[in-house]
Amino acid sequence: MSSKSRPSSAAMLINAIPMILLITLSGLTIVAGWMPDVRPDLQTKQDKVLAHFIGNSTDYFKILDHNDEFVLVGAKDVIYNVSLNGLKEIARLEWHSTDADRELCALKGKHEWDCHNYLRVYALRPNGEVLLCGTNSYKPRCRHYTPVEVSSEEAGSAGHAHAMRYEVSRDVEAQGLCPYSPAHNSTYAFADGHLYSATVADFSGGDPLIYRENLRTEQYDLKQLNQPDFVGAIERNGYVLFFFRELSMEVMNFGKAVYSRVARVCKNDRGGPYSHGKSWTSFLKARLNCSVPGEFPFYFDEIQAISPIVESGSKSLIYAVFTTSVNAIPGSAVCAFNVDDILAAFDGEFKSQKDSQSHWLPVEREQVPKPRPGQCVEDSRTLTSIAVNFIKNHPLMEEAVPAVHGRPLLTKVNLHHRLTAIAVHPQVKSLSGAYYDVIYSGTDDGKVTKFINILSTHPNSTVDRLKTVVISEMQVLPLGTPIRELVISTSKNSLVVVSDGSLVSVPLHHCSHIVDCLGCLSLQDPICAWDLQTHECKNLATSQHKFGTKTYLQSLNSTKKAAASQCPHIPEMHPVRRQ
Amino acid sequence: MSSKSRPSSAAMLINAIPMILLITLSGLTIVAGWMPDVRPDLQTKQDKVLAHFIGNSTDYFKILDHNDEFVLVGAKDVIYNVSLNGLKEIARLEWHSTDADRELCALKGKHEWDCHNYLRVYALRPNGEVLLCGTNSYKPRCRHYTPVEVSSEEAGSAGHAHAMRYEVSRDVEAQGLCPYSPAHNSTYAFADGHLYSATVADFSGGDPLIYRENLRTEQYDLKQLNQPDFVGAIERNGYVLFFFRELSMEVMNFGKAVYSRVARVCKNDRGGPYSHGKSWTSFLKARLNCSVPGEFPFYFDEIQAISPIVESGSKSLIYAVFTTSVNAIPGSAVCAFNVDDILAAFDGEFKSQKDSQSHWLPVEREQVPKPRPGQCVEDSRTLTSIAVNFIKNHPLMEEAVPAVHGRPLLTKVNLHHRLTAIAVHPQVKSLSGAYYDVIYSGTDDGKVTKFINILSTHPNSTVDRLKTVVISEMQVLPLGTPIRELVISTSKNSLVVVSDGSLVSVPLHHCSHIVDCLGCLSLQDPICAWDLQTHECKNLATSQHKFGTKTYLQSLNSTKKAAASQCPHIPEMHPVRRQ
Repeated sequence: MSSKSRPSSAAMLINAIPMILLITLSGLTIVAGWMPDVRPDLQTKQDKVLAHFIGNSTDYFKILDHNDEFVLVGAKDVIYNVSLNGLKEIARLEWHSTDADRELCALKGKHEWDCHNYLRVYALRPNGEVLLCGTNSYKPRCRHYTPVEVSSEEAGSAGHAHAMRYEVSRDVEAQGLCPYSPAHNSTYAFADGHLYSATVADFSGGDPLIYRENLRTEQYDLKQLNQPDFVGAIERNGYVLFFFRELSMEVMNFGKAVYSRVARVCKNDRGGPYSHGKSWTSFLKARLNCSVPGEFPFYFDEIQAISPIVESGSKSLIYAVFTTSVNAIPGSAVCAFNVDDILAAFDGEFKSQKDSQSHWLPVEREQVPKPRPGQCVEDSRTLTSIAVNFIKNHPLMEEAVPAVHGRPLLTKVNLHHRLTAIAVHPQVKSLSGAYYDVIYSGTDDGKVTKFINILSTHPNSTVDRLKTVVISEMQVLPLGTPIRELVISTSKNSLVVVSDGSLVSVPLHHCSHIVDCLGCLSLQDPICAWDLQTHECKNLATSQHKFGTKTYLQSLNSTKKAAASQCPHIPEMHPVRRQ
Repeated sequence: MSSKSRPSSAAMLINAIPMILLITLSGLTIVAGWMPDVRPDLQTKQDKVLAHFIGNSTDYFKILDHNDEFVLVGAKDVIYNVSLNGLKEIARLEWHSTDADRELCALKGKHEWDCHNYLRVYALRPNGEVLLCGTNSYKPRCRHYTPVEVSSEEAGSAGHAHAMRYEVSRDVEAQGLCPYSPAHNSTYAFADGHLYSATVADFSGGDPLIYRENLRTEQYDLKQLNQPDFVGAIERNGYVLFFFRELSMEVMNFGKAVYSRVARVCKNDRGGPYSHGKSWTSFLKARLNCSVPGEFPFYFDEIQAISPIVESGSKSLIYAVFTTSVNAIPGSAVCAFNVDDILAAFDGEFKSQKDSQSHWLPVEREQVPKPRPGQCVEDSRTLTSIAVNFIKNHPLMEEAVPAVHGRPLLTKVNLHHRLTAIAVHPQVKSLSGAYYDVIYSGTDDGKVTKFINILSTHPNSTVDRLKTVVISEMQVLPLGTPIRELVISTSKNSLVVVSDGSLVSVPLHHCSHIVDCLGCLSLQDPICAWDLQTHECKNLATSQHKFGTKTYLQSLNSTKKAAASQCPHIPEMHPVRRQ
């Protein structure tokens, strides 16, 4: 998730093409350890798709921004503004590559579908201009668009109400700002008027970098970035954090392995002194630890997606999806990381390798220059060369960032799919008044798993017991279609599921589709409760009720059987019984 | 599998207690990559258990020897000689711990069931004596038994025909020869009149060793053995090979990991000079590589069981079962290793760690003393201290032993079970005249998977394509009962499935249970073929036929559908069709 703000509107309209999808949902089950995730009870009931917005798979849809009302979709030669109310196109802005650029792209051996301008970067600049960057037929460019007020006649003749036109005020090469390929795992954040990009700076994809204006990671320095796949960037506390996976230098002696990382740069970094003027002085990275604990911890090593920062009670969390490596038994996990833990990791020991034949070991405290290198300082150009060189040679922290609760919130073993995307409905208030983060995670097979975690502190144990309650598993997209992103709109009660060529919205919660008490309780959705008076499964967020009231029933932390015993006895169900 | 010879008979008889088990079998499917292994088509038809031999789960049954007629079962205070024809006890020999030893065992805090004499080691000595060792209530002892001819009157009064009695001719402490606990993963081989044991030499299990008479691995030297679990030992070409898993020293910097190993010692090793008189001069070990190949190979790191050496065409193979580690997603694999590849690994480079902060790297050729240490020499006591010290410090080879075909023959991902045991019916001749090793592998859940591998050389590729054909999956033992060992008797057409407290025999092949052509062909068992003349599914090993004849049908390397098309069309099956 990039640090993006309000969506802009743009010109022209189209209608979404409807599409029929089979969607199934429902049930509940408690997951612990390695449970098979083929559980038919989660997939019994049919459900409605609310709306569609359909393109082609070669559109490489990418959500560039969203709020609770609109979503901006970067696509092939166009950016759409789509209303979350019915997934209707509100506006579009087209930007095609020139014929010359397209011909050059084809000459370089790229496919026809590669030789288009895939819009990958969007930001609203402080002066009201829109920054937009696209792959531009493997020759990335950025533009500034200045909004122009449209007269009411013009607006009327264009046939729509949202009257805003944009004029190109700047058009520049965007090497290092935007990927060359629409399929490249790039990311960016826009903070304080500056674009922080994590992408590649060359045609072949061999020069990965984290870049802002004049500053970049060292070129071809495998200690800093080694074949990274970026999955997200977030601004926080004077830093920009980048999440990615990469080839791990520290285990190279044992064969290739991919590790997950979080890196950070200081927003006020101005580069180093002398020859270091174009290098970060604050680039540091740490491993992300999403593993099943034990004597032999089992790591999910490949981060695939992150959520935006979720304010979860007193904690600021980032939820992330991890998988096992490409050749391994297919497994996925969701882990949460506390932003404080991430930032604390960068205050720990540095990792160092004496020579290529040595282990990577922590740098001894005496060997770290003072003041400690890599901190955010007022003017990094006044730093010593020693400090800047130290950071350049020691970008990796010794300690990994631990996951919240020290273990995954969900693990999933399924030979047919892996998790790919995540969205969080934060702090949903249950009947008891307790708050739950409701997590939605998509698969490369078109499914969405919805779950919560219940933490119970055992009186005789210092270890909190973490229970995963899977609320539903829906086949939202056609089987085999990878879900790329998930977007939540709480006001529209909808979850937008994004694939390469479509948006599909489904209800966030399904309380109202349940007609019986047991079904309502066994759903275990914290937002759904059974109304004993009206005999309805109600959405607590929208119904009038007092929390803790006895006219509603909910059963989050129990088995299906225990839930059933709470429901009122219905004599008609037992005709044999005499009364 | 230890190097064991003919079973002996011993005194006294009991009857096996019958037990009812549900057994299912049948079908076919081709397995490639990560296929789910819950395939109902393999588990449709019921099948008969041929016979049972039942004890208690605290008997810790261990097969100490077998041939095609008998199996010797080490148990609690007794060794049974069981006929493979009906699993009837032919004879038994009892050996109880003394009251004093049992009381001492209890005093040391062991459970009552631990304080018995579990017989774990058996060998027939060249002079006709029987060597038997038992845990003897955590104070292991060995005995020599001398056979005594029994007069016919004695035999008659004892009520049985097999008239042989044994007298104890020697009774000694057996520290290092036999484990203290019946559950310890120990093994042994008996070669040229000597016992080669791989076990622990102390009550707590903290002193593992490989031992023969005066020679042992270094005590508490983690480079040689680091918490090993031994799974088998085999004699070959002047060597004894030991198969085990252990904590890997070479990756200790990255956290604990278990690796699989094969170690070897020379049979003619007589220890080193001077102070090295009690140490092996030829102990070397290498990693066993059972992995799915690729850019990021996926390793099955924990060896669980091996087969005896199988003469497979021109190759001598050892088949082995591997699993993922205890905390990982449960996966299992079967790999085969060529004995020549194992022995060649010990002629390769040595692995070395300069200091505790360095990687393990190959020792440069110039740094290896000459003549090369670790070889089998006429009198190892004449070796130099340099050579002996080098081997002591460099027991690990640089290269791992590759699996035959560079990949597993079977992989299995099932959250409910892992493979535990293996037996091979070697070189079964199919209708085409081709030979197949038919592999049986047991699970910790009471199931037996039977499969073959078909190798097809693709004309346009240098890589052979390896196809796994699963013939059947049978639930032989009650669900949840771990299978410890598997024994094949081809003459009795039976597979003996061994758990802690029972032997169960089932048919090796099921041709005769199939009544239709499609069923017979889709079984894909190389020993079964459909007789077009008699309309029977026949066992090729016992039926009169010419290989390559056209009156039989078989379809090993095709899909079920393709197999069906071979079967003769039966008009009665299609009553709707007019002719």
